[in-house]
Amino acid sequence: MQNSLNKRYRSSLALLTDLYQITMAYGYWKAGRQEEEAIFHWFYRKNPFGANYAITAGLEDAIAYMQDFAFSVDDIQYLGGLKGADGRPLFEEAFLNYLQRMKFSCDIDAVPEGRVVFAHEPLLRVRGPLIQAQLLETALLNILNFQTLIASKAHQVCLAAQGDTVLEFGLRRAQGIDGGLSASRAAYIAGVAASSNVLAGKLYDIPVKGTHAHSWVMSFEDEQQAFATYAQAMPANCVFLVDTYDTQKGVDKAIEIGRALRAQGQDLLGIRLDSGDLRALSIWARKRLDEAGFEKTKIIASDSLNEDKIRTLKAGGAAIDSWGVGTNLVTAQNQPALGGVYKLAALRKDANSEWAYKIKLSNTPIKISNPGALQVRRYYLTDGRPYGDMIWDELQTSPLGQLQSLDGRSIVCDSRKYEDLLQPIFRKGELCYKLPSLGEIRKAAERDLALFQGVDFKLYPKGLEAHLAQTKAALIEGLKNKKQ
Amino acid sequence: MQNSLNKRYRSSLALLTDLYQITMAYGYWKAGRQEEEAIFHWFYRKNPFGANYAITAGLEDAIAYMQDFAFSVDDIQYLGGLKGADGRPLFEEAFLNYLQRMKFSCDIDAVPEGRVVFAHEPLLRVRGPLIQAQLLETALLNILNFQTLIASKAHQVCLAAQGDTVLEFGLRRAQGIDGGLSASRAAYIAGVAASSNVLAGKLYDIPVKGTHAHSWVMSFEDEQQAFATYAQAMPANCVFLVDTYDTQKGVDKAIEIGRALRAQGQDLLGIRLDSGDLRALSIWARKRLDEAGFEKTKIIASDSLNEDKIRTLKAGGAAIDSWGVGTNLVTAQNQPALGGVYKLAALRKDANSEWAYKIKLSNTPIKISNPGALQVRRYYLTDGRPYGDMIWDELQTSPLGQLQSLDGRSIVCDSRKYEDLLQPIFRKGELCYKLPSLGEIRKAAERDLALFQGVDFKLYPKGLEAHLAQTKAALIEGLKNKKQ
Repeated sequence: MQNSLNKRYRSSLALLTDLYQITMAYGYWKAGRQEEEAIFHWFYRKNPFGANYAITAGLEDAIAYMQDFAFSVDDIQYLGGLKGADGRPLFEEAFLNYLQRMKFSCDIDAVPEGRVVFAHEPLLRVRGPLIQAQLLETALLNILNFQTLIASKAHQVCLAAQGDTVLEFGLRRAQGIDGGLSASRAAYIAGVAASSNVLAGKLYDIPVKGTHAHSWVMSFEDEQQAFATYAQAMPANCVFLVDTYDTQKGVDKAIEIGRALRAQGQDLLGIRLDSGDLRALSIWARKRLDEAGFEKTKIIASDSLNEDKIRTLKAGGAAIDSWGVGTNLVTAQNQPALGGVYKLAALRKDANSEWAYKIKLSNTPIKISNPGALQVRRYYLTDGRPYGDMIWDELQTSPLGQLQSLDGRSIVCDSRKYEDLLQPIFRKGELCYKLPSLGEIRKAAERDLALFQGVDFKLYPKGLEAHLAQTKAALIEGLKNKKQ
Repeated sequence: MQNSLNKRYRSSLALLTDLYQITMAYGYWKAGRQEEEAIFHWFYRKNPFGANYAITAGLEDAIAYMQDFAFSVDDIQYLGGLKGADGRPLFEEAFLNYLQRMKFSCDIDAVPEGRVVFAHEPLLRVRGPLIQAQLLETALLNILNFQTLIASKAHQVCLAAQGDTVLEFGLRRAQGIDGGLSASRAAYIAGVAASSNVLAGKLYDIPVKGTHAHSWVMSFEDEQQAFATYAQAMPANCVFLVDTYDTQKGVDKAIEIGRALRAQGQDLLGIRLDSGDLRALSIWARKRLDEAGFEKTKIIASDSLNEDKIRTLKAGGAAIDSWGVGTNLVTAQNQPALGGVYKLAALRKDANSEWAYKIKLSNTPIKISNPGALQVRRYYLTDGRPYGDMIWDELQTSPLGQLQSLDGRSIVCDSRKYEDLLQPIFRKGELCYKLPSLGEIRKAAERDLALFQGVDFKLYPKGLEAHLAQTKAALIEGLKNKKQ
């Protein structure tokens, strides 16, 4: 019996790539160039969701992918069966043997998860054999683009909720199984309080929340009996969904059960509104609950919520304590892809050769990639506030500390406190990074966002170190003058 | 060392659910109701992408999930550690033992993959112990919603391409690993010719396509050398990406290499345009290629394509033969979730009891769910064209053959040829369905779309069988009159 899920989960992920990565790998190998040393960077060009920054996520999965990077026997068999237009095998045997023996040996540097970052900043750097750096591209983009997208989206939702509890309820509408799992994890990094996704809770130690659905109420003769039976089973987990038939009557029944819970030393934790005019209903319900002495009972809202709806409801005075957000959060509905890219930045024949700097030209100057072995230096003011982000090239001498800001300013950062954002992750294929726990990552995001509090993200200086800016300008000039 | 990918892939998927499914399961168990017999249906309420139908996909993965449905020891341990607001375990030991011993025993009926279906039609039916039917909900929705969404999206893209080859290039921007894998599979079902995703090729036997990226060209001193080296390595797979520096010069270099290929008995298969004015560039390139005697060389276009851009380019006379579509296809960018739901439709205490029909009321009549054990009967005209889709209830006597169309028409379908769309998949938890190959599924989609050729999807009659319509109306009346 075919079992597609198992097949998928048991497969190596070396083939989780675009075919052109493997044809290029073959081309490099045929030309004897496979071991040339290359430097590639992952970065994105436009901050998502109309915001002026993003929050990184996905590195832990990317590390797992690279640690396991190896072609299995059946991967090689599959590649051996691929044919060109002439019906002959696309790849020759010796190349397939090379792939099968290949051992991941790259140096990887990356910005840890949960950091505030900006468009054009290198967020992950791969330095190693050209063939390996090429083969890693697609899977790294798949993993990192999506999780950074969702962390950034979740942060936008949390911002709209202004400190209220945000719950992630999206699994049923997520794009596939790990679409759901990694969305739960990325959302938690960016400040979402809990998820409905139990497997995410188990795998990542994320708090999980949930009580009952409409089907629970529908399965009983009436709502009263549904609430009472639930309260009997789980007196310490009573949040009643009150809109199955008539929300106002539902609230009154929840209050009645709440009184019975109190008699047992428990309490009515909350009610959930899932349809109708959430603003009016929440205000009405709050008043009703307060009058009945249930001032501490929370009102949770759900129903296709997103940051705009939350903002409107809050501005309208809705009496909502917690926001359950599903589809719009886990699919990043208004921008379902980050658009991150992975570009070659430098290449040399071997350790004794000169580096050749590489850029991808474009008619749009901002789309021209940056050359070198890039690092991001973040400068801080003495009070701890970030002062500017400078992309500099580790292949050149130590940075000048002069920042050519993207908006044309030239800013001296030299004497200030700083940190370099990219951390060593792998050296020669060996992991040299202590993976933080998810809780630590979440705290890092919280800390970064607190540091940036009051900073105007739009005006915040970010750009190239002066030497690097010159190098890049000269490269562009050279390429434009060259007869292609 | 933590390895989140491996952890994820090795886990059982019984916890791939919302916590409220498990609290409800506990509630049913505490009330002694866990073995009551329930019927739930998966359906969606709005055809996606402004179309008037959808294409089913995802059943194979859903079957795999149900076949493996069982709580592992560590699932149970995790659930045992969850606490209520009073700090005490949320679930009692005996319930966890029950879960661990639970064996999937439902009857499942479903519309096979690759069929044309409509909003409100039951596409998967679960009949079995209330507790199991409840626990399956979230994962089924996760799997089926997404894949049906992508098959439907891919079909829209293929429609826009009017028979041209469509290639799926989306892995790097997909929402997670199986976001990418299942999108490749669903897109292939709906008519996409090939994918760049090699693992999808290996797992699902989908044709894979790809040649080289900009980084290949950038890694060489010049473009000419890049093309020549590629041609030497893979003379039978030459599609050159011509826009790294200057598209028109790139085309001329490709032609030059094409001549050298011909001298070896090979040919220039194609060129790929990935930026700029695709309409003007393709027309220019076609002329240039033709003049040089490369009339058979294909022009492939990519660059954030979607169905609208393809339609505009075709209307403008673009000389493009193949369309590489990535991000917008695999994330279903303009509608990244289907919004399918799973609703309780009938319940009885045991095999000797009467069925209680269940509907979920709503202020919007079209959102009121349908009761019973639903089946979809598709009637055909003698020439094979579909005539109407009738939702009928297998718990009632055989259908009357009179269709109350959603738009208010009453249509007699009685004497016509028909088929029932939902097929038996599991009986008492045992698989009784022969899984078709992906190629067979793709052919089924092709056949269905051919049958519907010329049918006005908007006017095509679909609705409830007359008895069922009466039953539903009476239920609504009863619920509205009932003092809740």
